[in-house]
Amino acid sequence: MTKTVGVGIAGLGTVGAGVVELLRKNGDRIARRCGSRIEVAAVSARDRARDRGVDLAGVTWHDDAAALAADPAVDIVLELIGGSDGIARAVIDAAIAAGKPVVTANKALLALHGSEIAEAAEAAGIALAYEAAVAGGIPIVKAMREGLAANRISRVYGILNGTCNYILTEMAASGRDFNDILADAQRLGFAEADPTFDVEGIDAAHKLAILTSIAFGSAVNFEAVHIEGIANVAATDIAYARELGYVIKLLAIARQTPNGIEQRVHPCMVPAEAAIAKIDGVFNAVVADGDFVDSTVYVGRGAGAGPTASAVVADVIDIVAGRQAPIFGVPSADMSRFEAVPMARHVGCYYVRLVVYDRPGVIAEISAVLRDERISIDSLLQRGRSENEPVPVVMLTHETEEAAMLRALEAFRRIESVIEPPRIIRIEEF
Amino acid sequence: MTKTVGVGIAGLGTVGAGVVELLRKNGDRIARRCGSRIEVAAVSARDRARDRGVDLAGVTWHDDAAALAADPAVDIVLELIGGSDGIARAVIDAAIAAGKPVVTANKALLALHGSEIAEAAEAAGIALAYEAAVAGGIPIVKAMREGLAANRISRVYGILNGTCNYILTEMAASGRDFNDILADAQRLGFAEADPTFDVEGIDAAHKLAILTSIAFGSAVNFEAVHIEGIANVAATDIAYARELGYVIKLLAIARQTPNGIEQRVHPCMVPAEAAIAKIDGVFNAVVADGDFVDSTVYVGRGAGAGPTASAVVADVIDIVAGRQAPIFGVPSADMSRFEAVPMARHVGCYYVRLVVYDRPGVIAEISAVLRDERISIDSLLQRGRSENEPVPVVMLTHETEEAAMLRALEAFRRIESVIEPPRIIRIEEF
Repeated sequence: MTKTVGVGIAGLGTVGAGVVELLRKNGDRIARRCGSRIEVAAVSARDRARDRGVDLAGVTWHDDAAALAADPAVDIVLELIGGSDGIARAVIDAAIAAGKPVVTANKALLALHGSEIAEAAEAAGIALAYEAAVAGGIPIVKAMREGLAANRISRVYGILNGTCNYILTEMAASGRDFNDILADAQRLGFAEADPTFDVEGIDAAHKLAILTSIAFGSAVNFEAVHIEGIANVAATDIAYARELGYVIKLLAIARQTPNGIEQRVHPCMVPAEAAIAKIDGVFNAVVADGDFVDSTVYVGRGAGAGPTASAVVADVIDIVAGRQAPIFGVPSADMSRFEAVPMARHVGCYYVRLVVYDRPGVIAEISAVLRDERISIDSLLQRGRSENEPVPVVMLTHETEEAAMLRALEAFRRIESVIEPPRIIRIEEF
Repeated sequence: MTKTVGVGIAGLGTVGAGVVELLRKNGDRIARRCGSRIEVAAVSARDRARDRGVDLAGVTWHDDAAALAADPAVDIVLELIGGSDGIARAVIDAAIAAGKPVVTANKALLALHGSEIAEAAEAAGIALAYEAAVAGGIPIVKAMREGLAANRISRVYGILNGTCNYILTEMAASGRDFNDILADAQRLGFAEADPTFDVEGIDAAHKLAILTSIAFGSAVNFEAVHIEGIANVAATDIAYARELGYVIKLLAIARQTPNGIEQRVHPCMVPAEAAIAKIDGVFNAVVADGDFVDSTVYVGRGAGAGPTASAVVADVIDIVAGRQAPIFGVPSADMSRFEAVPMARHVGCYYVRLVVYDRPGVIAEISAVLRDERISIDSLLQRGRSENEPVPVVMLTHETEEAAMLRALEAFRRIESVIEPPRIIRIEEF
């Protein structure tokens, strides 16, 4: 006879309802694969009356989400509430205290308190799984933590926010500006009413902090992530990028540098031929580079009820089947700590766009600034030549330290003929 | 104190030597991740004298590979010899008999005897792992068996042979013919001296049979794979494909159809914009479509010492860490059997190329054949118009059953003005 495992679901939003639906629809298949029938034993959500399109007849309702953990019918607790603290945290703490395994989709909570929670779960000897927290349906946590476990990872990067990628894709396709496309995205449901976490890069940074920990066996260090969003990406920069053979993407990048581990989320110019440049719309993608496996790429839907439920239930199946790995790849006691590499020490190539009055000598002035900072120019585009009319000057630099680039930008601002704040976009070559 | 686990390596070719190197180089990292130090305890290979570039001092040498399993210092047996029977099979049988877990990279053996070997391993209660057998370094077995375990898979397809993909990529880039590029590939080490298994599609079919089993929970059924290689792909077809917005790839496809499960390996025309169309050179890629996760894509190196060793050692780490899944996703007793869907019942769109004498009425004759088979034409290209000179006629059809298309081809051959055997390439839309 097949054993039954009861899950308690805290949070019945899109993801929670998706998990209920998945367990109902694919219950037989799942039972064949893990030897147990997984049943929704109990749920908790704010509004008991709301119709979520799923049948909850016979399921115990708890008004207090944290009480799920104490329900004897609940074997595994699913935290699908979200938010870095508050109820979500209380649910996880209660599960750990009750010695029940937890599955969560909560990237904010893991980015901010991951190491501490992992330590508590480990001490209690319970599984804590979070495949859904990073890149939605893509099984990237499993791939990196187990599939690539034999490799020294030198770099992991990706498109971790579907909203930003959708907006940048639409900006490139239409030539329209950020605010226009954002409004469309909100109307179409691809962006939240309050899009701050997405468009400012915070959501991607949460996910990156988790991936960095898995990749490098280091404590989760969200504070060390350099974060810039996409609100300043101008349609004109996207057009110049295309002309130069590049695409602009919001990338989240963690890499081992001679100075330590760098973690950053910001708009990047990537070669149009790179795999990551071709990921359009709401899709997510992660590239992990290992010393033996070389480059591996993972693409799929990063959000939505179905993909997220797929990841949550995969974690439940792993727990039921007894498959466990150290929560962030290595036991908590072994997790290294790393110093943040300040962004000023980042070394890379830059796209620089100035708007200048095309007076005699302006290019000489600009060039002198770069020479003084020992920044060499790879290419320079200047279009239109009408004295006393503003014209754009676009440059690509060779590799330089960001500190030098920032000093150069300061100096550009002091040139009288430079009439707009200079814009830079970092270039990533793969 | 860290425990030590001894592996016995049967076969010291590229992959075996790669595993030795990996375990030496990343031993510390691996020990942190699985709690045990993995040591090469014993090896076996044909030629003891050959320099393999790895230090084997202190490692026991067995002349008989099957004797590795009996070596008390060997906890896990790695079968890296290859071949569907013979010594490879003897090594695996010996390990199962000795109750020792086995890791293998042997797709031919699993494609031909997978279900039977899985049953024996299960009966003996030992792990049998084979991540390296499919798509080299890409952790696709783990992704499909565990990461996507909650999904009903409708289709899995991919580029599973790097040699073929390299040849097709180079043919497209250069406009040169198959035989030319194959000779180049052999010189560069991207193709074997005897390329039969690769270019005839057999290697891809081996891998597909394994993926099909995992995707559908069915017994491995290599005999049911329809196999065509790339030797007949002409430079001219690649050029037409490009003109029509397609790329030609050797795809391995398994999908659930109304008639049952279809497994096929053959050259395909895929839309140039599809993710799979952009996978160039020796890279492999797999796309798995699940009902909740939607489409997920995995890309990486499908062969070579490093990527294959990465996959082999990941399996070893899983075994040491006690992570196990049913060998093909479901227990042997639960594996379904399926009838092969004969290729004649395949339904799809076709590219058809005829070479005809451009006499009055020839297009009418061709059209009549298609009308009689109820095949409708999506587009027709005819170039050049010089009577009594051969000209190509290229057509794309709407969906039709392959049986009808084959009858149409027979009828084309009987038309006097058709002067070369007609060529077809199946079109895949995603």
